[in-house]
Amino acid sequence: MSAQTESVDEANRVEIFDTTLRDGEQSPGISLNTQEKVEIATQLARLGVDVIEAGFPITSPGDFEAVTAISQNVQGPVICGLARTQKADIEAAWGAIKDSARPRIHTFISTSDIHIEHQLQTDREDVKGQAKAAVAHARELCEDVEFSPMDATRADVEFTAEVCAIAIAEGAGVINIPDTVGYTTPDEYTAFLGRLYELVPGLADVRLSVHCHDDLGMAVANSFAGVLAGARQVECAINGIGERAGNCSLEEIVMLLRTRRVDHGLDTTVVTEELARTSRMVSRFTGYAVQPNKAIVGRNAFAHESGIHQDGVLKERTTFEIMDARDVGFESNQIVLGKHSGRHALQDALEQLGFVVEGNSLNQAFKRFKELADKKKQVTALDLEAIVSDEMREAAQGYDLAWFEVEAGTRREPVARVGITRPDGTEASGESGGDGPVDAVFGAIQAAVETECELNQYTVSAVGEGDDALGEVTVMLRAHGRLASGQGVSTDIIEASAQAYVRALANALEGAAIREAESIVDDAAAAPYPPGP
Amino acid sequence: MSAQTESVDEANRVEIFDTTLRDGEQSPGISLNTQEKVEIATQLARLGVDVIEAGFPITSPGDFEAVTAISQNVQGPVICGLARTQKADIEAAWGAIKDSARPRIHTFISTSDIHIEHQLQTDREDVKGQAKAAVAHARELCEDVEFSPMDATRADVEFTAEVCAIAIAEGAGVINIPDTVGYTTPDEYTAFLGRLYELVPGLADVRLSVHCHDDLGMAVANSFAGVLAGARQVECAINGIGERAGNCSLEEIVMLLRTRRVDHGLDTTVVTEELARTSRMVSRFTGYAVQPNKAIVGRNAFAHESGIHQDGVLKERTTFEIMDARDVGFESNQIVLGKHSGRHALQDALEQLGFVVEGNSLNQAFKRFKELADKKKQVTALDLEAIVSDEMREAAQGYDLAWFEVEAGTRREPVARVGITRPDGTEASGESGGDGPVDAVFGAIQAAVETECELNQYTVSAVGEGDDALGEVTVMLRAHGRLASGQGVSTDIIEASAQAYVRALANALEGAAIREAESIVDDAAAAPYPPGP
Repeated sequence: MSAQTESVDEANRVEIFDTTLRDGEQSPGISLNTQEKVEIATQLARLGVDVIEAGFPITSPGDFEAVTAISQNVQGPVICGLARTQKADIEAAWGAIKDSARPRIHTFISTSDIHIEHQLQTDREDVKGQAKAAVAHARELCEDVEFSPMDATRADVEFTAEVCAIAIAEGAGVINIPDTVGYTTPDEYTAFLGRLYELVPGLADVRLSVHCHDDLGMAVANSFAGVLAGARQVECAINGIGERAGNCSLEEIVMLLRTRRVDHGLDTTVVTEELARTSRMVSRFTGYAVQPNKAIVGRNAFAHESGIHQDGVLKERTTFEIMDARDVGFESNQIVLGKHSGRHALQDALEQLGFVVEGNSLNQAFKRFKELADKKKQVTALDLEAIVSDEMREAAQGYDLAWFEVEAGTRREPVARVGITRPDGTEASGESGGDGPVDAVFGAIQAAVETECELNQYTVSAVGEGDDALGEVTVMLRAHGRLASGQGVSTDIIEASAQAYVRALANALEGAAIREAESIVDDAAAAPYPPGP
Repeated sequence: MSAQTESVDEANRVEIFDTTLRDGEQSPGISLNTQEKVEIATQLARLGVDVIEAGFPITSPGDFEAVTAISQNVQGPVICGLARTQKADIEAAWGAIKDSARPRIHTFISTSDIHIEHQLQTDREDVKGQAKAAVAHARELCEDVEFSPMDATRADVEFTAEVCAIAIAEGAGVINIPDTVGYTTPDEYTAFLGRLYELVPGLADVRLSVHCHDDLGMAVANSFAGVLAGARQVECAINGIGERAGNCSLEEIVMLLRTRRVDHGLDTTVVTEELARTSRMVSRFTGYAVQPNKAIVGRNAFAHESGIHQDGVLKERTTFEIMDARDVGFESNQIVLGKHSGRHALQDALEQLGFVVEGNSLNQAFKRFKELADKKKQVTALDLEAIVSDEMREAAQGYDLAWFEVEAGTRREPVARVGITRPDGTEASGESGGDGPVDAVFGAIQAAVETECELNQYTVSAVGEGDDALGEVTVMLRAHGRLASGQGVSTDIIEASAQAYVRALANALEGAAIREAESIVDDAAAAPYPPGP
């Protein structure tokens, strides 16, 4: 079975609604800046998703700005903004998406009694009124409106049907039925959707969508059941990130539909060869690792990726593999550069990888490339991705690591000294001991910027294989009560750690801190935003 | 909904067959020693699984030894050994499990034409003969015999039924229907199992089992469909590890059955409060991280685990959470020790954690605890788990890190010196530069032991939170053509890296290397063992 399938007719085409930048980005500890969000959205467009839910614009000025930037810069997919039923939400969403060629407003309100009572603290009549007003107002602003009855799978199906019928009557073109808490099973979901079709005749004339959470490990199976029941949009996220256990994994539902297409006739128009790279980009920018045994994009998902070929695979691939690794973009790229490769070769290679890098950015990337090529025998596509991503992050920061030195060992106390370039260009230095060299470096950075931080998470992973592999470090820390993260890349993991720490600290100080940390932890009483569908 | 449910009657009780130590341990790069396998099996018994598939004894002397040790030391669950239909396999399996109070032989042969043709290179008649002979021979040795038609979901159901009927006639008490390549969907699997029940009248009198792989993200949903179709055993693995994208995740199917019990009446007798700890132990010993958004055991699976409480959760937990984190063992343990805690307090705490540590091991653990308590304000249950696990690994190694020192920085070349204690007690030292301090330390270790290694993977994660958190490092390397892994734990990540590297190297040199690397990569032509169901 190949990913190169015939085009699918419109009735059997399942649209992919990517919520990596909205539901995914709400995961604790993720703090993407606007530039990173635009880069991910650009890659999602290259991947061929149909809709990008770019954010929840009312929730913060940073979210509004990012959705605006994506609307202005990313061509192809529909760009969608999330909004509660409040007028201000809908206007913020419209304000952020209006520059897109294909804008969509997605508004939602819960229909389950448990949410109506405890979260909304209102009653069913009010919910109907809010849904009606919200869809009507959204339609005044925007042709394309989607409505979600939040927590639908735990709601009374008759009441949910009433609310959906109201939304359709007011002009919603997409009705999305979320399993907000990841509670349903395929049979139940099929029955629920079937009953909705019976109760809401107008549902047959709009697009039905599914949005499933993975709390019980069922998000992909429930989404698949939804598609078989008639849904023609699946809401999902790269690497399955999202609230709690996350959303339906985009790569899994896409490859499930593609691999089993011959049996059910349904398919998406996703360019599956871009899946592996999109997964790496999201993992790198969010700091959320993909476990080795993750389906489709995990390191071991295809036996040959691990360098170990099983008996059966050697004799005939299909004995133990139902997909071809090349179809999801593993091994698709044979780019290898060395220390003698020039600026033009680098630019070509970056273009092949989908990065348009020119002028000063190209100079900077070339400088980093040369430094790396001095240390590594071969610079691969994976390395280039890591460098370019790293450069992109650097541009968005106000503090920089100028230099560091560290001494450590089992027979002495570690000591570290660092120099930090401040946003105004002056340099501050600091010195510290610690439990180890990394701890000492972190202490020295705190001393240099005269700020106390609490380390929250620290992870290191290698890019590719070999002794000279690049190390990629993610640091999450809390400073001035704000939680923020930063990443760093280097063949020296102490240096990568120091970079990551400085960037996380800069993010915390500059207010690009993680939204939830600000709005909810610091001010729990106000706690204004529900997590969304 | 609580994990403390009423006991379930036998007809509705689903047995949990854990294959973490067999299918899970076959994942690339995992090299558990016997002591680690016994410790995991002990924890699985504490978790209350019904069957432990402890290994595939014919495949290596190490596997045979580990299954034997588990059979002799772990009480409670059935201890199962895997075997192809060959006589030697069955005898090896029996030899390894015979000391268990409850031994089981699990034998398998493929029934799909693609496997019969390409992998077995035989025909259907021969498969029937092999299945018959194998089950008959196994039953001569052992009361409890399980049979699996491998790749059943891609096989002709009529032929699979014939083979299953033969196995039942010969005395197999469990028939397991594997979705070996992770290809099926819930509806198809339900139909396949329903048809088998029609074709094989004897199936109603034995235990039907399911074994699903996660290549398309459907393992849990397919296993659940199997249970609804009549299966009363689910084969699964902690953290869903296993071949390629792995097996059905034990924690997900268990919590799915428990959380939705009121709707279908089925349940397991797993002690769910042990799930989080079992997951941590398996992750630590295998070096396979669990992604933050993994259902049930991921860091974010429960919103409050991340320290961030959503609006709705504050008002009423069940608005956004369908399970209680305490029911899967998060936050269950409030153990906190400090520098003034004595030996007795440590022993008590370890006992609460399920570790029986006495005599010299207790002295050693106490020494490590005191060292750690000097560096960390509070030593938590997570820290104790990490130390004790680390001590256990140390005992099994022949080389040891005696000391190291390192100097590094942006303005100088890094240099490292190390001392390594050889198995005979003498010390060797080495010095090296490198791309960074970790690389320099790895170079110095190679110089000290005079062995060239190729680094294959390197990952670091933090145990718990805070600046003084323990760092846990996993190294996978290739030396003398063998792939092996090692772990190290310290507040100093350079030290943890050095420990992990020395242990991985010792594993490679001592032959505790990864089975696949030896038998398949080094000698692809012989390639004797299929991956199993």
